Amino acid sequence: MLKHLSVTEKAYIAGFLDGDGSIYVRAKPNSTYRYGFQIAPYVVFFQSAKDRKNFEQLCSVIGYGKIRERKDGIIEYVISRIDNIKDFLFCVRPYVKLKKEQLELMLEIMRVKKNVNNSNDFSKLLKLIEKYRSLNYSKKRIKRVLTP
Amino acid sequence: MLKHLSVTEKAYIAGFLDGDGSIYVRAKPNSTYRYGFQIAPYVVFFQSAKDRKNFEQLCSVIGYGKIRERKDGIIEYVISRIDNIKDFLFCVRPYVKLKKEQLELMLEIMRVKKNVNNSNDFSKLLKLIEKYRSLNYSKKRIKRVLTP
Repeated sequence: MLKHLSVTEKAYIAGFLDGDGSIYVRAKPNSTYRYGFQIAPYVVFFQSAKDRKNFEQLCSVIGYGKIRERKDGIIEYVISRIDNIKDFLFCVRPYVKLKKEQLELMLEIMRVKKNVNNSNDFSKLLKLIEKYRSLNYSKKRIKRVLTP
Repeated sequence: MLKHLSVTEKAYIAGFLDGDGSIYVRAKPNSTYRYGFQIAPYVVFFQSAKDRKNFEQLCSVIGYGKIRERKDGIIEYVISRIDNIKDFLFCVRPYVKLKKEQLELMLEIMRVKKNVNNSNDFSKLLKLIEKYRSLNYSKKRIKRVLTP
């Protein structure tokens, strides 16, 4: 969906992502999933709700995320569908500078996830997701391991 | 100095500025100045010190600011010379989306500042600077008026 954008628009979005965005994957405990975790990838942008109008316009250029206003006055624009994230990342990939590692890790996780056949594969996937701990700054992130 | 950059680099920097940067002017009380204030314009980028290497590389592309590490682990890249700020703003102007108003206000302030001839002109300048209060989010900013 981003393919219609000009190179300057893609480069702009890459800069905005590097400045203000976040790329990460969460392994959420969920017993209805085969290996006990839901794998949830995210690309998120943040902005003060004061800038809502311009921010919404920018988000509408990207096209496939959802805007959510937090109680602390921050608006988040969240892309969470795998196909959309992939499309988004491939488009900004040539221009991203600061979040290159996070971007490549996300693409690797998506490749590995597609080929999970057993709990051993799934453990490897969790280890990859674990790498976001050192790349990003969240203090809240919990280490997930597969309980045998 | 930014003129050698490609359009995608300029667009990237504009996106980075919109996401992570700040454009503002401070009127600092200083009795050695004619009207009692030093007019100090700033373009600042922020990044976690964890990303220092990539951030420094990005800053070196811009070329004329200074990196400063704060005690809270944030690195600031500050452009504060008027000529540099002007050059910078003219280069990113076509691509900036969220901080358009801050950018245009800065250019207006620079024009007005150049033509200050009396305290009446200077009061008008302070009023323009005051506009950053509503555009940006600082709670600390103090309202400056010219005391007659």
